[in-house]
Amino acid sequence: MPAELIAIDWGTTNRRVYCLDAAGAVLATVRDDIGMLRMEGRDYPAELARLREHYGDLPVLVAGMAGSNRGWRDAGYRPCPADLGDLAQGICWIEQGRTGIVPGLSVTEGARADVMRGEEVQLLGAVAAGMTPPDGLLCQPGTHCKWVDVHAGRITRFTTAMTGEVYALLRDHSILAPQLDGPIVDGAAFRAGVARAADRDLLANLFNIRASAVLGTRPASDAPAFASGLVIGADIAARPLDRRITVLADEHLGGLYAAAIEVLGGTATVIDSHAGFVAGIMAIWRQR
Amino acid sequence: MPAELIAIDWGTTNRRVYCLDAAGAVLATVRDDIGMLRMEGRDYPAELARLREHYGDLPVLVAGMAGSNRGWRDAGYRPCPADLGDLAQGICWIEQGRTGIVPGLSVTEGARADVMRGEEVQLLGAVAAGMTPPDGLLCQPGTHCKWVDVHAGRITRFTTAMTGEVYALLRDHSILAPQLDGPIVDGAAFRAGVARAADRDLLANLFNIRASAVLGTRPASDAPAFASGLVIGADIAARPLDRRITVLADEHLGGLYAAAIEVLGGTATVIDSHAGFVAGIMAIWRQR
Repeated sequence: MPAELIAIDWGTTNRRVYCLDAAGAVLATVRDDIGMLRMEGRDYPAELARLREHYGDLPVLVAGMAGSNRGWRDAGYRPCPADLGDLAQGICWIEQGRTGIVPGLSVTEGARADVMRGEEVQLLGAVAAGMTPPDGLLCQPGTHCKWVDVHAGRITRFTTAMTGEVYALLRDHSILAPQLDGPIVDGAAFRAGVARAADRDLLANLFNIRASAVLGTRPASDAPAFASGLVIGADIAARPLDRRITVLADEHLGGLYAAAIEVLGGTATVIDSHAGFVAGIMAIWRQR
Repeated sequence: MPAELIAIDWGTTNRRVYCLDAAGAVLATVRDDIGMLRMEGRDYPAELARLREHYGDLPVLVAGMAGSNRGWRDAGYRPCPADLGDLAQGICWIEQGRTGIVPGLSVTEGARADVMRGEEVQLLGAVAAGMTPPDGLLCQPGTHCKWVDVHAGRITRFTTAMTGEVYALLRDHSILAPQLDGPIVDGAAFRAGVARAADRDLLANLFNIRASAVLGTRPASDAPAFASGLVIGADIAARPLDRRITVLADEHLGGLYAAAIEVLGGTATVIDSHAGFVAGIMAIWRQR
């Protein structure tokens, strides 16, 4: 089947380009670090021309931070509840029918406000493809972890937690930084951190890492995994764990989240977020 | 009354020197930024000789981070429960009876460990001086906020929360940094942040600051106070609020903590931490 669409999951720091046929099969895909930040001051149309030269003169559909006010053009936010049809209706066309940007989603509940941009395609795509049930709680961990309620195939509300960013701040800039310079692996130290996080006292639990080093009460090599367990555990302990949670992530991060959810008494299934994106962007393209 | 003692509250970044008479009256005091970090590679004995030249050839008693393994000499940690007499017994004498460093305190409860160094003199001094009851919960906010249980004039246990440091990380290095560049004042925004923190979901509440800016749902000038309310509120919401809490702090930070404790249903009294230090160090000196 010939190529039909160039789809781009264009994030803040990375980008993944897919060349898709009409059935949604991936004919080619490449990931690079030309994210929104690297594009600043660069020419988006020229970049698309370069991709079309490579993959063929095809329509292009972009999702992610390239559609933010710091990206190519602000594609706005659709209010929840929303499904793939709403995203298709909300496409910001640079050139009608040929080059478009998928909008993000927003939710406001009283004084609480939240936004997402990019994850909505993967999440709703996973639901549309039957990778996860049409009703449930989905989790997409990362720098800003998304917790998403889906009902009848629509995103009804969601919560963003600064989980990955807070860990990175601690690792790179805090008094704990010298102790956190190492890989995070699932194991006894990670799970001990998660279990500790059940007390919902992140600010105090973190200092424990420092005190344990001063007093020599925990092996130094445990610190990165224990700290990661504290932060991921603090995120999960604030969520409802009475339903099976679907985690969209790569194997490593998905595995950490699934293990942590189980330590805190929940159940989780990990699915591949890239397959969700492909299913979602094709469904949006068909409903444009 | 003639000068009897040079007492130094020697912290990580600042230091306060007191010249005291035998009754504990402050004859002179000066605060400067020659903290432990500025002393690295410098000569502590020469610095003390300089102070003795200025104030007179008096005994010197040092407390704080100058007594850590990154300071002048590691004065160790005394295990809790401990009182001023225990600190006096634990003085690390550089020159017996003439130049000494007060030890810190440690607590270990199962896998939990905690340490303090410097605050113990102020806290136990405030108790000894009758500034706060001999039984109660004391709070010393700051970069690392101390929550201290005192029973019969002894510190029985304590918890350190990375409250001030986490706020500084967010202000200086996070995605929220551009929004947090401003003064923190007690007011509706600060108290709204504290009230939100009652849900014990700090990681998600923080992202609300970002989303509110993107969607324009909260005045930009509110962000620093709201964020501070979220972080201070997260600290306080994890503590028992059934007893009156004594807060040792300067007027600004003490006022923020007292307001936040009251928003979350507790009661607080703010007292001056410098007066606590003077009372504590004199009591230690007398019991040496």
